[in-house]
Amino acid sequence: MATLGANRYGKQKVRVLRKLDNGQSVVEISADALLEGTFDRSYLGDDNTQVVATDTVKNTIIALAHQHLGPVIEEFALRLGRHFLARHAHVDRVFIELRERRWERMVIAGQTAPHSFHASPLGEPYTKLALSRVGCELESGIRGLLVLNSTHSAFRGFDHTEFTTLVDADDRILSTVIEAGWTFLPDETDYRSINERVLAAMLEVFATRFSPSVQRTLFEMGEAALQSAPGIARIAIRMPNKHYFPANLSAFGIENPNITFLPQDEPHGQIEAIVRR
Amino acid sequence: MATLGANRYGKQKVRVLRKLDNGQSVVEISADALLEGTFDRSYLGDDNTQVVATDTVKNTIIALAHQHLGPVIEEFALRLGRHFLARHAHVDRVFIELRERRWERMVIAGQTAPHSFHASPLGEPYTKLALSRVGCELESGIRGLLVLNSTHSAFRGFDHTEFTTLVDADDRILSTVIEAGWTFLPDETDYRSINERVLAAMLEVFATRFSPSVQRTLFEMGEAALQSAPGIARIAIRMPNKHYFPANLSAFGIENPNITFLPQDEPHGQIEAIVRR
Amino acid sequence: MATLGANRYGKQKVRVLRKLDNGQSVVEISADALLEGTFDRSYLGDDNTQVVATDTVKNTIIALAHQHLGPVIEEFALRLGRHFLARHAHVDRVFIELRERRWERMVIAGQTAPHSFHASPLGEPYTKLALSRVGCELESGIRGLLVLNSTHSAFRGFDHTEFTTLVDADDRILSTVIEAGWTFLPDETDYRSINERVLAAMLEVFATRFSPSVQRTLFEMGEAALQSAPGIARIAIRMPNKHYFPANLSAFGIENPNITFLPQDEPHGQIEAIVRR
Amino acid sequence: MATLGANRYGKQKVRVLRKLDNGQSVVEISADALLEGTFDRSYLGDDNTQVVATDTVKNTIIALAHQHLGPVIEEFALRLGRHFLARHAHVDRVFIELRERRWERMVIAGQTAPHSFHASPLGEPYTKLALSRVGCELESGIRGLLVLNSTHSAFRGFDHTEFTTLVDADDRILSTVIEAGWTFLPDETDYRSINERVLAAMLEVFATRFSPSVQRTLFEMGEAALQSAPGIARIAIRMPNKHYFPANLSAFGIENPNITFLPQDEPHGQIEAIVRR
Repeated sequence: MATLGANRYGKQKVRVLRKLDNGQSVVEISADALLEGTFDRSYLGDDNTQVVATDTVKNTIIALAHQHLGPVIEEFALRLGRHFLARHAHVDRVFIELRERRWERMVIAGQTAPHSFHASPLGEPYTKLALSRVGCELESGIRGLLVLNSTHSAFRGFDHTEFTTLVDADDRILSTVIEAGWTFLPDETDYRSINERVLAAMLEVFATRFSPSVQRTLFEMGEAALQSAPGIARIAIRMPNKHYFPANLSAFGIENPNITFLPQDEPHGQIEAIVRR
Repeated sequence: MATLGANRYGKQKVRVLRKLDNGQSVVEISADALLEGTFDRSYLGDDNTQVVATDTVKNTIIALAHQHLGPVIEEFALRLGRHFLARHAHVDRVFIELRERRWERMVIAGQTAPHSFHASPLGEPYTKLALSRVGCELESGIRGLLVLNSTHSAFRGFDHTEFTTLVDADDRILSTVIEAGWTFLPDETDYRSINERVLAAMLEVFATRFSPSVQRTLFEMGEAALQSAPGIARIAIRMPNKHYFPANLSAFGIENPNITFLPQDEPHGQIEAIVRR
Repeated sequence: MATLGANRYGKQKVRVLRKLDNGQSVVEISADALLEGTFDRSYLGDDNTQVVATDTVKNTIIALAHQHLGPVIEEFALRLGRHFLARHAHVDRVFIELRERRWERMVIAGQTAPHSFHASPLGEPYTKLALSRVGCELESGIRGLLVLNSTHSAFRGFDHTEFTTLVDADDRILSTVIEAGWTFLPDETDYRSINERVLAAMLEVFATRFSPSVQRTLFEMGEAALQSAPGIARIAIRMPNKHYFPANLSAFGIENPNITFLPQDEPHGQIEAIVRR
Repeated sequence: MATLGANRYGKQKVRVLRKLDNGQSVVEISADALLEGTFDRSYLGDDNTQVVATDTVKNTIIALAHQHLGPVIEEFALRLGRHFLARHAHVDRVFIELRERRWERMVIAGQTAPHSFHASPLGEPYTKLALSRVGCELESGIRGLLVLNSTHSAFRGFDHTEFTTLVDADDRILSTVIEAGWTFLPDETDYRSINERVLAAMLEVFATRFSPSVQRTLFEMGEAALQSAPGIARIAIRMPNKHYFPANLSAFGIENPNITFLPQDEPHGQIEAIVRR
């Protein structure tokens, strides 16, 4: 016999843009909202009476965004989550994820344009909320932040096996796509300032410290993030090593003293760690 | 002060194709291998002596694939995992994921071609292994399996709120991208046969049962999967509802009795559940 | 002074699915319709009176699809094109492109399912029409058809330069993504049968002839296509060489007699040619 | 009988990064090089003696990039093109396309970092060259430049048909992905300065002029580009209209005075025009 285990459902990729200050800024999100609760009748038989239609979930997101979406996406996530819990007694937990398309004001001839924007190059901010009547987990983070150091990175002195062919590199290129998520302490509410400080702290480490390995750089980035923001409990960082191997031109009698590199998307190294207090 | 928490690293998207039977069949995989263990010196200081270079991980995957990759990717995942544990005392757990590009023999003028293939339309099979010296979790599954029912699907009698505008549908299109993962019982080794039976069972339910909701169809697919394969403990299924809304042509005085639909990739419904014995 | 040169506008990626025979088959397209004509007032000043809104173009595609879309997408392209020319005297030329998501009936336990489908593995068929009041160019084709020969392919005896390191290959893997477009003769109307015959002819060559080069295989595929279908004037074929290089395991003392290969998406060879009568 | 028509072949997506000034800047490109000439023997028979292997084309690109790639990608395209013509008498024409991944120096705590970069948000610059022994066409441009105006855009007074449901918009959001290519005059060599001025001119128009239609904005952008750079002959601009429709919340008794919008990737309007002197 089959039994229904953990389950949740809802709507994903609901996109909304809201203008603020007559269009002097805009907030654009792609939102997911999944509901967990007592929905077994829809799985175990032909009975949808417990089901809030995902179309209704979508409409709710859009209507509440119109009324409440502002520059702090964490606040909107909480509002959405609370709405579903308050409205539906049979919903036990709500999972919200908001991904932000960050728009930056253009600078035209040295002046900030009043209502014109280009996409931000600094990755996609997100916030993830798991909210129940007894608890709340809130994580914010960044994905897709593509960065590169042209020097001050090395990798040497590593373990060797029968399958090792890599040689020590004293001066290599380090490129990665930063994905990082930090968990707020329960009473913390200063999300926006924390997000800015965490991001700045990570980029400062990336740009100013010598990197003996992706591992070391990742840990130092996490350490700096924790130092910059007492309001977070931990940070999880995942960084692919997007390889740039030196071009080997020796077959053509050409020397390449670490000047020319061949970027390669795959395979890629992958380093993942949690840094906590 | 900052502390190193859970961490792992390795290589991802290592692609290999191996010919079998002089090319009468081929196995093509994209492999990830991540190592968990005692690697703290690389995070906490400028010391890489514990680090098996991810380049070595890549070479190991390729060399072992040459020696051992066959039609059953679960067996290769286990072999890879065991290799890393046996070779490195300071590795405690290995995470392997293999994704398969399934190649199907062409049929030319009614005959199966001896060494010519096209891509399979039935999604991307995968296997995920977490192997330590004391335990083993092995899950296989399928992703990206795009299917559609043109009729025999409905959705009515659902809960209504102040944000509900959806009306009951008696005959709708049901399209989804099946993503399902099933967990093998500890002593089970007949992976290939199970994978085939689970997939066939899910598709048979999809194709033959009336669907009163995605939830119901998902549960019945999971139930049939469990019935077809006593060797699995549970199955997790995630199915987006890829909406096809009826085209509303009333503004042009044209009736559309459920004949013409507007496919829409986003937003999409999302239904996720575990079905277990 | 600036002058307006060639210009066109319209709507792209209008998706429609139409059921046929009570859902026993479905036709799903993504349609583009661009209009060329007398629209200069919208470019040269603040005057939109000549502009058929792209939203109207979208509505027109959907409404006509409801009334006329059938299994032969070329016929619908022509109908759409003629509609815009007939309806708007100031439109001189219409560009239509239809891309088809081909759905295949599932086979369940040896039986064809009556209303259940999976995506076709044989690429994306398309048709492109440029229709004016004095002329018509109609091309149909296929994109994204991924195929592989595990053997019976070689590449040797090529030109050598100071930058050549490639060595002769007597037995290599040949994989490509076929993109081909064939142009119908003016009076030809048997689109469906021609499309099937051209595709079958190309795949038969790919599967049955020894390949001394991608160039040779491409030409033979084009030649066979022309032979199979007197109603086409020419065929343009573009085929990337999706490289599968033999894994070099000599550093580990392992021989690889053309058994194990490393697939690589980029860089890729690219061969493009027109074959005509 | 089948005849070989126009044909060309080569390598695509050859990626190279070159450090300049000890890594204070980097140039990263993805390069295509296709050769046209006398290669018929490879198509018409089993004879590759005319074929410069695409692997050699790749090596050539990398070796010449090491020796010559600098900040002006047009100069490198010309050098590559001339190399193939000079080296191979049977090559008649060379098609080069270089796409640049533009890396921007990070600013850390108000200071420009010496060797650290993030991806540029301003799209992907490219240059396309068709070079023969008797002629040269050189076009540079930009793709993927995502921009948005939150106001100062309208669309009204357009043509109406039986399929028109769109109503006049006095204040809409205008978002597009600019794709523009400009053709240099034969003797022009100041590519870098022209590229900067053309881009700045287009963005200034986008940010400062009221938009009565995408057509008008496109033309004014082209006009400004031509004015900014006497060294270009024409500019081709393609701009999708990435729709942001006002959320209709009237079913919930909520008014939306142009504050909240639903972004929609497809279908999209498409406007394409050439602006010339």
